[in-house]
Amino acid sequence: MRIELSFTPHQADEAALRDKTVVAIDVLRASTTIVTALYNGAREIIPVTTVESAVNLSAKLAGDIVLLGGERGGRMIQGFSLGNSPAEYTPEKVKGKSIVFSSTNGSQVLVNGRYAREMVVCGFVNMAMGVNFLRERPRDFTLACAGTNGAFSLEDSVCAGMVIYSLTRDDSLELALSDGALAAQTLYKSHGKNVLKLLRSTEHGRHLQEIGFEDDLKLCASVDSIPALPQLDGNVIRLKRDAERKDLSPAAASS
Amino acid sequence: MRIELSFTPHQADEAALRDKTVVAIDVLRASTTIVTALYNGAREIIPVTTVESAVNLSAKLAGDIVLLGGERGGRMIQGFSLGNSPAEYTPEKVKGKSIVFSSTNGSQVLVNGRYAREMVVCGFVNMAMGVNFLRERPRDFTLACAGTNGAFSLEDSVCAGMVIYSLTRDDSLELALSDGALAAQTLYKSHGKNVLKLLRSTEHGRHLQEIGFEDDLKLCASVDSIPALPQLDGNVIRLKRDAERKDLSPAAASS
Repeated sequence: MRIELSFTPHQADEAALRDKTVVAIDVLRASTTIVTALYNGAREIIPVTTVESAVNLSAKLAGDIVLLGGERGGRMIQGFSLGNSPAEYTPEKVKGKSIVFSSTNGSQVLVNGRYAREMVVCGFVNMAMGVNFLRERPRDFTLACAGTNGAFSLEDSVCAGMVIYSLTRDDSLELALSDGALAAQTLYKSHGKNVLKLLRSTEHGRHLQEIGFEDDLKLCASVDSIPALPQLDGNVIRLKRDAERKDLSPAAASS
Repeated sequence: MRIELSFTPHQADEAALRDKTVVAIDVLRASTTIVTALYNGAREIIPVTTVESAVNLSAKLAGDIVLLGGERGGRMIQGFSLGNSPAEYTPEKVKGKSIVFSSTNGSQVLVNGRYAREMVVCGFVNMAMGVNFLRERPRDFTLACAGTNGAFSLEDSVCAGMVIYSLTRDDSLELALSDGALAAQTLYKSHGKNVLKLLRSTEHGRHLQEIGFEDDLKLCASVDSIPALPQLDGNVIRLKRDAERKDLSPAAASS
């Protein structure tokens, strides 16, 4: 298993991710928000990169089952129903809904993965789910970090490093680490002991605290708190088990 | 002093480097080759990104004082006089020459810096020169790593981390580290103890060994072996002292 890693979406564009197995990581906060939303019953997440596409797409889809979610500069976008705080995505608000989602960093990675062979969404909150997904299919994969405003993000890199470190503990896997994967593992070993402390110290974590989202950091730092794995299914993101159930259903089999 | 860091040229494009103080780093091998060439008497290095521009430019310049240097895939380009091995750039070959230079990774960073406020070229071989340059002008700066084929390179990151670590030892400087700068410092602490061992282990270092450039790794790993600091001067790279001497000369003062 060769492990590639990109620290920013520039490196992991559509061409680079095409036909790959991809783990998308945006700890603060898209990964955490998407995991939370789907675990709380959202039907699907539709990632788009621009506010304009989000508005256009939601206008085309049936009204009351669609919500607009996301942020710019960390804050909710005008006219949207939801921001990018995992705490907002409660069962009451999201159950059964399709959510058109546009965040500054995470959406770009998710959209870049549209021609991937398969892509899942991972954060600290569903670490074991992400690691098990990779362990079950011992093939080359790419960890695609969202970064922050096009630049390197320490929290995404440490999260990617935790995935790698967890896999290295499994002696049955033969791993070949790219320079980036080796670096992420080193960063996890140095900065990953206290995830909440890490999130409070990084550039994006400090920004979120400054604009009042201190509590989100606690949610995003809770390792393995949510047993859910979002997976790209066509152009939308669903819980992995739902995506698979659909594939196995008679309707899907006969189509 | 705020320290920004880009791990690949994607992040550090022309716009991002505009008006900045920049340290360009391509350990294997452009930084090392350029430092060596100028120390050995080359008049200037003219970085270009494509083989086509290199050939066109050299055709326009006066014949016998111009050399073409660079590589693709680590090997010398057909029709060029020099590859990208520092060992080739001897005083006999380069003294007094202008060298049009095109390498896979380093040239892009050097060209991206053309609108920088000032840019110097640093590797392990001239570490102290690079660090002193920054210490003398305590202002924000960007470490721009070349990376390898558009992706993260461990040797460039560790070299950048060594610059940062050296500055942190100076108590008189107040440093603010971006996520990327903090990560590079961590990578230096973990992987920088034995630079030659590091270079032999990284992806690009292994590639160079496979194609017969094992000896280059030793040259590139020799910390502070060459007391020379290349600096961008208009569109060309010269030794810093030559660039400054020109600025102080009566001709320059009256122009």
